[in-house]
Amino acid sequence: MKILVVGASGVIGSAIVNALSGEHQVISASRSSGDVNVDLSNPASIRAMFAQIDQVDAIISAAGEADIKPLEALTDQDYDRASGMQLMDQINLFRYGKDSLAPGGSVTLTSGAASKYNFPGAAAIGMAFAGLERFADAAAQELTDIRLNVVSPTSVTESMEKLGWPTEGSITAADTAKSYLAAVTGTMNGQTLSTAEYA
Amino acid sequence: MKILVVGASGVIGSAIVNALSGEHQVISASRSSGDVNVDLSNPASIRAMFAQIDQVDAIISAAGEADIKPLEALTDQDYDRASGMQLMDQINLFRYGKDSLAPGGSVTLTSGAASKYNFPGAAAIGMAFAGLERFADAAAQELTDIRLNVVSPTSVTESMEKLGWPTEGSITAADTAKSYLAAVTGTMNGQTLSTAEYA
Repeated sequence: MKILVVGASGVIGSAIVNALSGEHQVISASRSSGDVNVDLSNPASIRAMFAQIDQVDAIISAAGEADIKPLEALTDQDYDRASGMQLMDQINLFRYGKDSLAPGGSVTLTSGAASKYNFPGAAAIGMAFAGLERFADAAAQELTDIRLNVVSPTSVTESMEKLGWPTEGSITAADTAKSYLAAVTGTMNGQTLSTAEYA
Repeated sequence: MKILVVGASGVIGSAIVNALSGEHQVISASRSSGDVNVDLSNPASIRAMFAQIDQVDAIISAAGEADIKPLEALTDQDYDRASGMQLMDQINLFRYGKDSLAPGGSVTLTSGAASKYNFPGAAAIGMAFAGLERFADAAAQELTDIRLNVVSPTSVTESMEKLGWPTEGSITAADTAKSYLAAVTGTMNGQTLSTAEYA
């Protein structure tokens, strides 16, 4: 398969590229590195990327960072990031990318545990991730020849280590990547895959 | 109680005003009518409204319309409306309004059935409503002296009649208003109230 991985330079993104590279043709995309550059916050940049890469069998987004921040500390800018980077940017990747998918192709986006689990600082990203998961569920009902799913990663070991946080219960980036492979090679549509199930 | 009702001129909003008016002091707010004017898409307008009205015991939003539209027909503008009017505008009403709440006060926002139920045309509004409900759930965990809830109205009889749609299973605006009263007078926090339960 020919697979576009957006956010390919990140912790999860690079693990996905590694996992796919043996068997599949990977096109890596990032803001400033990889095979193609893209700024997901700019629809024109998304369109320009798809104009470059021609048809693909799968599109994976491992883009977006989770900003965990107390409710009282959240600024207008934080909400813009959440509703933009973590929600609409990924929806726009799907919207502008789906016509570049080969029949039977798939789009896989990334949410996070804040979509379902309460912890301090989860309000803005929880809003964004729940919105993304619900979009995939509802939109999938109207798709005929392509599939749309979301992967919700549990905490990633390498990211926890970088932050100096406890790694208990975390899943390595390599194991996290298995959920994306499952979404790409499987038949599910409109699902949110928990990485704990596929690790 | 002194209660601010935003979107007071709408089908649900005017029913809420009617239901509250006997016992409570209602401040009605709309874009162009009511006691105060507000444009929820403009944070400066929200702030100006709260500067006018001093302290209140409850803030209710019955604002926002649900745009049901097939996935293929959804435009950039439709997504802007969904992520704006139906999601961030109401979150901003909470954010800028909560400091105007008396201790023990509450904010009650409005979502819709698309947050949970799949039907054709639900993708954009489902995204917005699910995001709103999740925000309330997560944010509520961090609130100490105020409460935040969401009412998810089932189809409203008067709105169905206007559209010429079947009214079977719908709930009158007057019965829909009961959920808002329950949210304002109750003790729940972070909940999404289905109007079917309170009608």
